[in-house]
Amino acid sequence: MISKNQLKLIRALGQKKQRKAQGLFLVQGEKNVLELSNSQLTVKSVFATSDFLSENSQSLKGFECVEATLDELTKASTLVSNNAAIAIVEIPTVDVPKAEGLMIALDGVSDPGNLGTIIRVADWYGIKHIVASMDCADPYNPKTISATMGSFGRVFVNQLDLPSYLEQADLPVYGAFLEGESVHKKAFLADGILLMGSESHGVREEAAKFVTDKVTIPAFGGAESLNVAMATGIILDNLRRQHS
Amino acid sequence: MISKNQLKLIRALGQKKQRKAQGLFLVQGEKNVLELSNSQLTVKSVFATSDFLSENSQSLKGFECVEATLDELTKASTLVSNNAAIAIVEIPTVDVPKAEGLMIALDGVSDPGNLGTIIRVADWYGIKHIVASMDCADPYNPKTISATMGSFGRVFVNQLDLPSYLEQADLPVYGAFLEGESVHKKAFLADGILLMGSESHGVREEAAKFVTDKVTIPAFGGAESLNVAMATGIILDNLRRQHS
Repeated sequence: MISKNQLKLIRALGQKKQRKAQGLFLVQGEKNVLELSNSQLTVKSVFATSDFLSENSQSLKGFECVEATLDELTKASTLVSNNAAIAIVEIPTVDVPKAEGLMIALDGVSDPGNLGTIIRVADWYGIKHIVASMDCADPYNPKTISATMGSFGRVFVNQLDLPSYLEQADLPVYGAFLEGESVHKKAFLADGILLMGSESHGVREEAAKFVTDKVTIPAFGGAESLNVAMATGIILDNLRRQHS
Repeated sequence: MISKNQLKLIRALGQKKQRKAQGLFLVQGEKNVLELSNSQLTVKSVFATSDFLSENSQSLKGFECVEATLDELTKASTLVSNNAAIAIVEIPTVDVPKAEGLMIALDGVSDPGNLGTIIRVADWYGIKHIVASMDCADPYNPKTISATMGSFGRVFVNQLDLPSYLEQADLPVYGAFLEGESVHKKAFLADGILLMGSESHGVREEAAKFVTDKVTIPAFGGAESLNVAMATGIILDNLRRQHS
């Protein structure tokens, strides 16, 4: 059973201010909770149905588990679906990554679902580090975590002063701009930073001035733009195919 | 002002049964409503703020427009955000497309947001026709329309008996399977059908047996899968780059 205080804590962690104050975040949904056993993250508690707990006792070994009904979990959850399991996890301390290998930089990507989808596709293409401007969505927002489908445990996101980071980075900065060179033609180095802007505003000037190579995805039809997560995935595919 | 009957109709069109009975669907959000003027669709009414109506009087010429407050529109809308304009539009009669050119086939893709994102990326890559199994999401679901970002006017979706369609099609059927050939290596013909399955079940056997070529997106990291819309976009990019 989920106690009144536990319920209060779970609900509170739906808010960024509370996540920051407590140093905790929520991982919701079966797949995401099971990924915790493969991660380095510190799990405080797992609330789940008896079925989920018994079916996954091996993966959950070492975690403090609390059995709850689906009703209780649905009531506690900050998401509308997929609530057979909810975990409370410590927000890790992540050092600012050295600019090396292939990385992603995000400028003003404020939708948590998009950020989560970018984390997932980054993981697919073997990227470990995302640097994001301070006004990007919170990497620990429940919607972000949910959209990562477990990849939150393998990809680290740092929110930082993005222009300063790009300025000191000794790597090519590939920026996505409509007027850039086609990613079908561009010769990419194996290492670099892929810089993506928000769908509404693109890459802002403060960050754009550190772009060394502007690139674009060739269009064949009528759509004016692509979703930022989709565009990130397509460009990553074009980057990686040259160095596989 | 939105009348009581109009409000009732708008709310009703949030449901598939009502859309079918009335032969009408909703287009919500500024960008989507403005796209209507570039489409062949028959618009019954547009409800919008006075600002939106006066700023876009050219694009809205010929439509029956009803001025409403943002409060009224928000109350009427079936979506949580982006409600400065709502249009009621006739569901067009779309003939089953001849199997020619590059097309997409969807097997059991039930999430409306994913379907909408697939319509948008199909439009980017110049694809006009999507054929979808009967259990796919409704192409006229408000969440589908919203996610297309206007591309609903340029890409036609037919729900039909998918296995029969694939059986009679005289085109290669490229099916997305984890064990397929890498899309980085595969030689694609310019014309063909890209067949995508649902994230949870993949392509089902009834449709899979008509696949002529299994393809896959090479993975470089830890994620087990990609979102179906993301995978569709990445494979389309790989198809089009060979014939641009």
